[in-house]
Amino acid sequence: MPPADILRTLLSIEIPIIQAPMILQAPLVPLAAAVSNAGGMGSLGCAEMPVEELQQRISELRSATPKPFNLNFFLHQEPRYDPDLDLEIRNLIQPFYNKNGLDAPRDASSTDLETFNDDKLAILVEERPSMVSFHFGCPRRPVLDALHAVGIVTAATATTVREAIALQEAGVMIVVAQGWEAGGHRGSFASNFEDTGIGTLALVPQIVDAVDVPVIAAGGIGDGRAIAASRALGASGVWMGTAFLSCLEAPITALHRKALSSAGDEDTHLSRAFSGRPCRARQTPYSQHMARTRPRLQDFPLMYNYSGPLKSFGIDTDNLDFQFLLYGQAAALNREMTAAQLIEKLTSETATVIAQMGAWDRAV
Amino acid sequence: MPPADILRTLLSIEIPIIQAPMILQAPLVPLAAAVSNAGGMGSLGCAEMPVEELQQRISELRSATPKPFNLNFFLHQEPRYDPDLDLEIRNLIQPFYNKNGLDAPRDASSTDLETFNDDKLAILVEERPSMVSFHFGCPRRPVLDALHAVGIVTAATATTVREAIALQEAGVMIVVAQGWEAGGHRGSFASNFEDTGIGTLALVPQIVDAVDVPVIAAGGIGDGRAIAASRALGASGVWMGTAFLSCLEAPITALHRKALSSAGDEDTHLSRAFSGRPCRARQTPYSQHMARTRPRLQDFPLMYNYSGPLKSFGIDTDNLDFQFLLYGQAAALNREMTAAQLIEKLTSETATVIAQMGAWDRAV
Repeated sequence: MPPADILRTLLSIEIPIIQAPMILQAPLVPLAAAVSNAGGMGSLGCAEMPVEELQQRISELRSATPKPFNLNFFLHQEPRYDPDLDLEIRNLIQPFYNKNGLDAPRDASSTDLETFNDDKLAILVEERPSMVSFHFGCPRRPVLDALHAVGIVTAATATTVREAIALQEAGVMIVVAQGWEAGGHRGSFASNFEDTGIGTLALVPQIVDAVDVPVIAAGGIGDGRAIAASRALGASGVWMGTAFLSCLEAPITALHRKALSSAGDEDTHLSRAFSGRPCRARQTPYSQHMARTRPRLQDFPLMYNYSGPLKSFGIDTDNLDFQFLLYGQAAALNREMTAAQLIEKLTSETATVIAQMGAWDRAV
Repeated sequence: MPPADILRTLLSIEIPIIQAPMILQAPLVPLAAAVSNAGGMGSLGCAEMPVEELQQRISELRSATPKPFNLNFFLHQEPRYDPDLDLEIRNLIQPFYNKNGLDAPRDASSTDLETFNDDKLAILVEERPSMVSFHFGCPRRPVLDALHAVGIVTAATATTVREAIALQEAGVMIVVAQGWEAGGHRGSFASNFEDTGIGTLALVPQIVDAVDVPVIAAGGIGDGRAIAASRALGASGVWMGTAFLSCLEAPITALHRKALSSAGDEDTHLSRAFSGRPCRARQTPYSQHMARTRPRLQDFPLMYNYSGPLKSFGIDTDNLDFQFLLYGQAAALNREMTAAQLIEKLTSETATVIAQMGAWDRAV
């Protein structure tokens, strides 16, 4: 079976385009529903949702689409707060607080963002979404067994061959190969991804060679050209986040839309300064400052405590320099349209590109 | 005309695969000749050749192939030696010298590596190679005019859209879009490439959209899958270095061959520690140490003065930890065979991949 058909069969979707889970200011239900309704697969980033909200969003999404969808969760370690670092980090950020008249956080030692747990698992087993995906780690065997037992397809992010093999060995059904170009948090869990950062074009074929499960390509996929390229590299489907950020259903501000519509290839960098984990985002004076000074930081997600006041200030004052705009290296290719129009466009572009290929061997 | 045919017509080659110029311990004439004879385009990295050697190598290459070939030159700025940095850098490296009983360099202030100049230009105008390519900069108009006047096709490396536009505006005929995955020196000249580092999959289509000249994809292209992917992204051809390093004609040591045959996706990182410019190479204890401490460094190529004793030690003692192995993120896909066999393999793989594509749109 050709790779693209494997995914269609496994996920019961018409088009092997998965809208990557993202966490924005407002719920992504309308976007995810629109993508699923258009024949792709919509996703919700559920990592920050308390259990009650998770149940509510699933219910909203079910009302908005009868089609398959994906729910994504973080598998990060519980953070260890380092009190010795606290003053160092505050000193580094204080000038940014001062300049904008912001109060420094009182206490940065705790977080509401729980890692994946049994309560969330229980809801998934009950609700049975078509697919559950994980980021930042390898799910434990009992978790996978519980999900698979009720027919849920599982996926998880790998940023290296080593991680892909670990996921397959753990029993994960689909590997999402996340290349260096990808916006948002690196899914790395076993490799020093910050140093090596393998690009999508190099990563996908190496992971395809290393595992037997279907591989979905992620990172820098902006239009039909990159979808066709992902197919050539051996991917069974694509995972696109940034491209869907400009969809009319995406709950982003007018300022975000404007920023995306003028995005360039050099906008972003990889920074731990926002959350404590490496994350590709638009460069800001704050993230550049932290990149230059390269301080030791608190664990994910404790850094949000320090960066939070800057983010809130950016939102309140419509100042892009203080917002956390997570997007990838192909944002300049974004188009503003409905999700259904984008899926249609991507599908026809891909078909056109594939039809125009050939002429590479000497016989032609 | 389809992109692949544009390059064939412009360069008079049968297969739009360009062997990237590289600088190894011994001249690359046999490899370059074999690639050109097989229908691709062989290249010599001429940056470090004195004028007499340049003339000799061209003559050797002409004797070895009647086919088109490419000569590559560096357009780096003359380095400014910073005497204040000297002690800092020596202090950082001294432990590596001490541990291996090496003498520190006496004087690190000068270099034999000249940037491109009128003497070299005069030889090119006389010898008329099919193609001349530049790295680290944008050639001046009179240089391009002189080369174009005698029918030489010119190319230069861009690592961002901005650089590609600058090259086109200067009159360069072909842009080599070098992605983050590429082994060896980043060609960046206008952008802070170290921070942004755009992956090949994201970079190529954005450059294709931005310029009218043909674009050659470079970086992480290991086999026919990535060649087909490059074609999908809109590239007119591919520029492959690492893949040719394992060819039987490549003048590398048995130890290098062994290292390449067991290369992995996480082997390399980007480091200035070898030459003073960002360069993708196998990680070594020295380059990791320099990455961690992130010192200010002397300009390219003055850093070779400091790193040179370590490199020589590595070669003399067959110790990989001290050699400078420049390769890209797809080295794990390398195959050991003759250049002609590799060109044949790449061509047939690409054709097979393209033939198997399709099945992406809902109609199938």
